[in-house]
Amino acid sequence: MTTYTAPLKDMEFLLHDVLKVSERDIPGYGDLDRSFTGAVLEEAGRLASEVLAPLNATGDHEGCVLENGVVRTPKGFKAAFDALRAGGWTALDCDPEYGGQGLPYLMGTAVGEVMVSANMAFNMYQGLTHGAYSAIHAHGSAEQRATYLPKMVSCQWTGTMNLTEPHCGTDLGLMRTRAEPQADGSYKITGTKIFISAGEHDMAENIIHLVLAKAPGGGEGTKGISLFIVPKFLVNADGSLGARNSLAVGKVEHKMGIHGNATCVMNYDEATGWLLGDLHKGMKAMFTMMNEARLGVGLQGYAVAEAAYQNALAYAKDRLQGRAITGTENPSGPADPLIVHPDIRRNLMDQKSFVEGARALTFWAASLIDQTHRKADAAADGLASLLIPVIKGFQTDRGFEMAVQAQQIWGGHGYIEDNGMSQFVRDARIAQIYEGANGVQALDLVGRKLTADGGKHVMAFFEMVKAECKAHDPEPRMTAFTDPLKQASKAMQAAGMFFMQNGMKNPNAALAGSYDFMLLMGHVCLGLMWTRMAKAALTALDAGGGDAAFLTAKITTGRYYMTRQLPACALHLARIESGADPVMALAAEAF
Amino acid sequence: MTTYTAPLKDMEFLLHDVLKVSERDIPGYGDLDRSFTGAVLEEAGRLASEVLAPLNATGDHEGCVLENGVVRTPKGFKAAFDALRAGGWTALDCDPEYGGQGLPYLMGTAVGEVMVSANMAFNMYQGLTHGAYSAIHAHGSAEQRATYLPKMVSCQWTGTMNLTEPHCGTDLGLMRTRAEPQADGSYKITGTKIFISAGEHDMAENIIHLVLAKAPGGGEGTKGISLFIVPKFLVNADGSLGARNSLAVGKVEHKMGIHGNATCVMNYDEATGWLLGDLHKGMKAMFTMMNEARLGVGLQGYAVAEAAYQNALAYAKDRLQGRAITGTENPSGPADPLIVHPDIRRNLMDQKSFVEGARALTFWAASLIDQTHRKADAAADGLASLLIPVIKGFQTDRGFEMAVQAQQIWGGHGYIEDNGMSQFVRDARIAQIYEGANGVQALDLVGRKLTADGGKHVMAFFEMVKAECKAHDPEPRMTAFTDPLKQASKAMQAAGMFFMQNGMKNPNAALAGSYDFMLLMGHVCLGLMWTRMAKAALTALDAGGGDAAFLTAKITTGRYYMTRQLPACALHLARIESGADPVMALAAEAF
Repeated sequence: MTTYTAPLKDMEFLLHDVLKVSERDIPGYGDLDRSFTGAVLEEAGRLASEVLAPLNATGDHEGCVLENGVVRTPKGFKAAFDALRAGGWTALDCDPEYGGQGLPYLMGTAVGEVMVSANMAFNMYQGLTHGAYSAIHAHGSAEQRATYLPKMVSCQWTGTMNLTEPHCGTDLGLMRTRAEPQADGSYKITGTKIFISAGEHDMAENIIHLVLAKAPGGGEGTKGISLFIVPKFLVNADGSLGARNSLAVGKVEHKMGIHGNATCVMNYDEATGWLLGDLHKGMKAMFTMMNEARLGVGLQGYAVAEAAYQNALAYAKDRLQGRAITGTENPSGPADPLIVHPDIRRNLMDQKSFVEGARALTFWAASLIDQTHRKADAAADGLASLLIPVIKGFQTDRGFEMAVQAQQIWGGHGYIEDNGMSQFVRDARIAQIYEGANGVQALDLVGRKLTADGGKHVMAFFEMVKAECKAHDPEPRMTAFTDPLKQASKAMQAAGMFFMQNGMKNPNAALAGSYDFMLLMGHVCLGLMWTRMAKAALTALDAGGGDAAFLTAKITTGRYYMTRQLPACALHLARIESGADPVMALAAEAF
Repeated sequence: MTTYTAPLKDMEFLLHDVLKVSERDIPGYGDLDRSFTGAVLEEAGRLASEVLAPLNATGDHEGCVLENGVVRTPKGFKAAFDALRAGGWTALDCDPEYGGQGLPYLMGTAVGEVMVSANMAFNMYQGLTHGAYSAIHAHGSAEQRATYLPKMVSCQWTGTMNLTEPHCGTDLGLMRTRAEPQADGSYKITGTKIFISAGEHDMAENIIHLVLAKAPGGGEGTKGISLFIVPKFLVNADGSLGARNSLAVGKVEHKMGIHGNATCVMNYDEATGWLLGDLHKGMKAMFTMMNEARLGVGLQGYAVAEAAYQNALAYAKDRLQGRAITGTENPSGPADPLIVHPDIRRNLMDQKSFVEGARALTFWAASLIDQTHRKADAAADGLASLLIPVIKGFQTDRGFEMAVQAQQIWGGHGYIEDNGMSQFVRDARIAQIYEGANGVQALDLVGRKLTADGGKHVMAFFEMVKAECKAHDPEPRMTAFTDPLKQASKAMQAAGMFFMQNGMKNPNAALAGSYDFMLLMGHVCLGLMWTRMAKAALTALDAGGGDAAFLTAKITTGRYYMTRQLPACALHLARIESGADPVMALAAEAF
């Protein structure tokens, strides 16, 4: 059985030493002092360790079962969901007008990491609800907000997002689900949606489905798509539950992982729905929530890796096998612990340096989203939009790889399902696929985000990296960070230049390198994060106040990342600069 | 449901255009003309496609069930195993003295690939038997060989290898299983072995367990270990089955993958066993079979990736989603097939160029093993021993990654178990772990194989690469291969030099880079293979005889590998040259 402990010290370091939240001029951040954030995160950690983590294996083994149209969640999930509600965790960063606590998104993100690490499949029920809450909050009428939001803030009702259909996922223009307008202003929704997470379950009184469908008159492709609120039970004027809507779960999928979450085929048969936002602007409404949804998946990437890492580390310290080549380190035992071996250490350092770097990037992006929403800061919005596909694509790819490496430390025992390491791998795998497969993230990054607003956001990013390097350069202890970061940033700029010079003539020259660019930029971002963390750790060390061992370990871990991971940028650049030809030379029919 | 078709054309190209088997001066190779190998492989492919592949999903879904001490294999496995036996496939490269067909190991390898691609878990029953056959063949007395081999060649009896115990896998010196000598020359074996593939099942009359155990007087650690034959049913003097031996399956493991193979906990309770080979030389006896066993696992790495690739390719050609950025390619359809998109193409080319390169490396190594055994060629033996950890470690790592990439092409549908792509990933994962986890392969490579016989085998490898580049250089069409290969080989030499200069002072400086060296050498090996294949394809094209489209595709695929994959060598070198410090700087207690 695996265990999980929230990395409180790492989180506090990020919030207070790196991001310096309480000093920031963002509404709501002033309240985030050490004692407040410490209390929130500690309490979240307790719930995660004691309630959610022990259910992680249960969810995996039992899965969700469809019987007579009802989906039974794994034993213990319902009580845990009640505990989540009772603790007010579902309301953390929601609007106080609807019963939320109004904390910054950043705090929701930190707490979210803890919950995801402990039990990713379980956390999705409230995560999807939060997404649907955000959509109704942003696009709903006053009446819709009043009707749905209070119950969704408390997770008395949960929510879903219905995009995918059997024949279309990425290409939503092919959508077949129809919405027929009715005389009373409602619509009749008919169609089949697949891969609907938390589509049906036994933990909430009602489920509010947000469904993309084509209403008449919108034209071809994605232009004709609108977004609809389609509740499982219709809601009466007084807020009580009315008739059962004509929608039903058709199947619960048997998946590789996240068994504890019910992934449903949903059939809508002239179900009653109400337009959410503007007619034929459903895609735009979806896109406004995209940043948060994708950041949430990028978070899953490293949060599962964190949990896997903790259990790999424990095993590496516990399992005795072989002797250190430099001399016995555990003379009283029959062998030394695995952690003495350099290749085990390499594996652990890969994991540790990735997870801590990704957490920093995710927290930073969450603070940019707060800046966007709480200060209407367009520059922060542009930067966040640039970072999001990197956070989603790079972090879920690397997070999966790190979960695999964590499993590897357990050797054959990692392959046995009872030990729980396999679940981390199987669960982490989905994050590379859903919410826009990672190839689509790369396409979004190179095809859209790089050139958005005349490329000014990526230029601002380069300037920021340059300015930070320059600011740190007078400090000799920082060159181990700034030198590789400058190199990596230069590689990223060269890649951008290659796209500019070649992509106009042949768009394939850019798209063939899009995936490598996403990974390259991911390394630059983590290099920037490690530079900031190293500086913050040095500052705290020099001030003499903090935990010296912890701060020194931060710097050592960061040096590992800079030395061993940033050289990957040159590889990605080489691939990018090889252009379209190697990738496209073989004709489709010659495969 | 996934499907599988044996890549006959690729195999024939390797055997006849690249390896030119029938022209080689190796006993038995003269018979391997095109018509013979074609007939064998075609027949193997038919069995694989029609019988084994359809059972792959069955094996995954049903798994093996232990009931009252008996392990029930999945429905259809027994009939398929009968078909395998009836076709003589289990006897292919076995000694004719014991009923084998005496074909070269290379042919067994080619047929093995086909069987593994179709159904890895199923193929392990005969694979393990072949390993035990080899051990008894190499180390058994004349009586033991006569007693066991004929029945094992036909797989009337199957075999197992018992090494691992709950507390020790890699470090066999910690072994606790004991062997007590008896007055009649037999031993009483007592202990618990875990992860015993095919340890118990319902497809054979008898199971011949080869068990490592400690007999008195051998001293500490691995020195005291001997190898024993411990049959499930004792064998009477006339060859008939006698009493049930006192051994039992304790549990069938619930694993991440290869569900169709019974992975057993085996309990030996004073079970009767007979010494195989010399007393206290059990480890040495095991090591003589190591090359073949590890090559077999390296083969699994790319063979599963081949099957995954075939199904990813089919999906990429079939699934309509989006339009080509360079203009619609399927105007009569609602969208273009996935394969038009550059990032999908990149993904497929990664897979294709890896699988074909790994097949070439594996076939070449198999031919070196034939040279070793059939011509007692010590140079071939040294070279094969050098290549084996690379084939095992690099190919299983990359094979797993390619299976993951194949699954990615299916998007969300790849995550649904019914579609079969997840099984490839879960099955491929074990190959990185068993038969020496890949970190152990890297240790073997850098700690033992590089320096074996004064480093002469790695020097010979470098000389071979240099000579081949020089031989091809006059051909201008070959520089796209020889230039990157020279670069990559130079990086590998620099890495070796770094180990020499730093490893003596600090062994951690070598071991911290061991994993990267294994991957670096893997790329050099595949670069060498692609250089050879390109040359062979050009030669055949110039001769005007072959399938021009096929041969041209070979060259295009090879150019992809050289351009997009070989630059990874510089990354691995950079990591290696960063030495021990980044990896070891964080003390174990500071994690």
